[in-house]
Amino acid sequence: MRLTRYFLPTLKETPAEAQIVSHRYMLRAGMVRQASAGIYSWLPLGYRVLKKIEQIVREEQDRAGAVEMLMPTIQSADLWRVSGRYDDYGKEMLRIRDRHGRDMLYGPTNEELITEIFRSSVRSYRDLPKNLYHIQWKFRDEVRPRFGIMRGREFYMKDAYSFTLDYPSAVHAYNQMFVSYLRTFARMGLQAIPMQAETGPIGGDLSHEFIILAETGESAVYCHKDMLAFDIFTEDVDYDSDLQPIVDHWTGLYAAADEKHDPEACPVPPGDLVEARGIEVGHIFYFGAKYSEPMGAVATGPDGKEVPVEMGSYGIGVSRLVGAIIEASHDADGIIWPESVAPFRVGLINLRASDAACVSVCDGLYGQLAAAGVECLYDDSEDSAGAKFARMDLIGLPWQIVVGPRGVKAGTVELKNRKTGAREELTPESALARLSA
Amino acid sequence: MRLTRYFLPTLKETPAEAQIVSHRYMLRAGMVRQASAGIYSWLPLGYRVLKKIEQIVREEQDRAGAVEMLMPTIQSADLWRVSGRYDDYGKEMLRIRDRHGRDMLYGPTNEELITEIFRSSVRSYRDLPKNLYHIQWKFRDEVRPRFGIMRGREFYMKDAYSFTLDYPSAVHAYNQMFVSYLRTFARMGLQAIPMQAETGPIGGDLSHEFIILAETGESAVYCHKDMLAFDIFTEDVDYDSDLQPIVDHWTGLYAAADEKHDPEACPVPPGDLVEARGIEVGHIFYFGAKYSEPMGAVATGPDGKEVPVEMGSYGIGVSRLVGAIIEASHDADGIIWPESVAPFRVGLINLRASDAACVSVCDGLYGQLAAAGVECLYDDSEDSAGAKFARMDLIGLPWQIVVGPRGVKAGTVELKNRKTGAREELTPESALARLSA
Repeated sequence: MRLTRYFLPTLKETPAEAQIVSHRYMLRAGMVRQASAGIYSWLPLGYRVLKKIEQIVREEQDRAGAVEMLMPTIQSADLWRVSGRYDDYGKEMLRIRDRHGRDMLYGPTNEELITEIFRSSVRSYRDLPKNLYHIQWKFRDEVRPRFGIMRGREFYMKDAYSFTLDYPSAVHAYNQMFVSYLRTFARMGLQAIPMQAETGPIGGDLSHEFIILAETGESAVYCHKDMLAFDIFTEDVDYDSDLQPIVDHWTGLYAAADEKHDPEACPVPPGDLVEARGIEVGHIFYFGAKYSEPMGAVATGPDGKEVPVEMGSYGIGVSRLVGAIIEASHDADGIIWPESVAPFRVGLINLRASDAACVSVCDGLYGQLAAAGVECLYDDSEDSAGAKFARMDLIGLPWQIVVGPRGVKAGTVELKNRKTGAREELTPESALARLSA
Repeated sequence: MRLTRYFLPTLKETPAEAQIVSHRYMLRAGMVRQASAGIYSWLPLGYRVLKKIEQIVREEQDRAGAVEMLMPTIQSADLWRVSGRYDDYGKEMLRIRDRHGRDMLYGPTNEELITEIFRSSVRSYRDLPKNLYHIQWKFRDEVRPRFGIMRGREFYMKDAYSFTLDYPSAVHAYNQMFVSYLRTFARMGLQAIPMQAETGPIGGDLSHEFIILAETGESAVYCHKDMLAFDIFTEDVDYDSDLQPIVDHWTGLYAAADEKHDPEACPVPPGDLVEARGIEVGHIFYFGAKYSEPMGAVATGPDGKEVPVEMGSYGIGVSRLVGAIIEASHDADGIIWPESVAPFRVGLINLRASDAACVSVCDGLYGQLAAAGVECLYDDSEDSAGAKFARMDLIGLPWQIVVGPRGVKAGTVELKNRKTGAREELTPESALARLSA
């Protein structure tokens, strides 16, 4: 993409309302723009990151056997009256009355709707287990939206729902999501720690939050210090096999979110306990028949008896992850994207847009990178060299190729690694070979 | 995907509420399920088609130089008061009051919001032209939602917005979208006819609807009979070149939507005029400074003078296209998907799931198709042969491979083309080679 044809409205000044680094950099890098309180437009650069994250989430859900579909954003209030949550949910639910006076709402989550879909289609244990997920915009009318897209009102979330006949299968479904979450976050370069959690308005009696440690985290978390030394989880997994050993390994040491942590009952000696701040990026729940029973979602077992199906739900904050990754990976100059979620892999800087030789080298590299399938943002603008360097560091693409008149005469370009800062002079061909590898 | 792991709740009976064939087949094929009036859940099979269509639209927008971003579904009423449309829009706008009593709405379109984003970022002709698009859910509170997703309340739409300094550039931006629409619909196997249209609530003085002719179309359309013989438009296009000749070719013969057609003033002799029913799948508008002027979206020209930018907007009904394609391509047994939007390319039917030899051949083919990147739905269920054939015809995958005990003994499988009905006995290897080509 040529910068002159792109839409990248970066800001020099840090907007006053941004209190945390991810919010500051997302505004400054032209990734998002606030539309109204807690509601954001995703500008082209931010949108690309959001889609990369979404795609990783999708691939790992598919790998774990979940099946994708899509439920609407606007739901009827009726289903929520059956489950009893219409009144429970409080003011965070955005309530709407349509032109015919029917009570509707903007879905904050989808347990009711998916249970209704399941109920009207599945009858027998032969159709089980099932895990259905979607990635859709949700709305929670936060009283004080803050931290940009980290605690916005309209947010993008993956939510999966498992249906099984009995408790052991429900635990296996839970474990499948548990392990897929480890892989999902690892692919984004994040160490997410699973922590015991309260189930809150979703209900149920088994729940883990997946937490990224960050100073700017909203909630306190507590864990055994040895958990911090766990290797990031990148193993290939057979999701049909027994996953309990993996789950046991990751839950063997104490780790709990604030509301679940009881200092009196904590089994970890004070010297081994770490107290930190964390960002919740995923939350999984097992809640048995909490929805299937009142809504009549039953299946017939091999014995011919009808039972309410066992359910769990599994969320990942897709839009929030954009901020969480920035919180975990940045420096004083800007964002440092992990390659897996970078909006472009390479930033190509032409230092002198008026120099025919520089343009020729840049155009050549740009075409060859495209042919090699390497996503490249090509700064072909007439801005100053300083402005170009600062912008490219701010938006944090993993690699920069800098083309200037002196290098072009010598037959070289500069390849810079955004993370390490390492720079190397090499021929355009070598730079290309390095990035196409 | 193995059917036993998928979620494909097909229906034997035609639901009474479905009046048109696309609605009937989408319900029967387990593609969608109504959540409430005019609001649908997209079940896995329907979701795959929706994503295929979305991806074609995206690729053709990108090719034409438009840049993707994403605006939120919920907007503040304030912007719409500035443009004057908050009151104009009437009851089709879903109006919402949030917990702080602020007036919000579910966006039916995005002229105001994109103009605001543009206004706050762009100052100079050097940043022009720009064309920004997004693909996002919209809501129009139709008084009588009908025809399934064809006239639903929550619907998925691509909308692009062009910004240019002057009228000639605005016409070029309009022509870029005009031509890209021809390509977009052609890739879905559709002959979409551009017709002169009224601009309605969007405003402006130049507008075309892209219409698919279909008996079940909602509106009457009128065109010169020779337009029906136009070849489908599949040319490669240089979008920086002058596109006026292409546009002139496609607008040279009379074609008009109902509300634009004036029998008294029609230049076509009655014998050459075709009256037909049509489905609107795209609509493009040029409206100059209608929004930029009241909202203060200005740019400085090369002469140093500030002018309101010229704008156009360009919509494609992504979810509606799913229905439109079915209206255009089906038979008495079910849907016939064009390859470009088919949810899977191949349906693999094991006629005898209890037969080890059949299972072995099917599992082998299934693995090899996956390795070749061919999307395959593998019916590994224990249903009857008749049920399997009927289901596979109903969901309309372009190719079927049928594996039965007799063929397996003879070393053959049957390859069936859903569209032509042609069947062929051949070895599994030959079938694979045919489909991987």
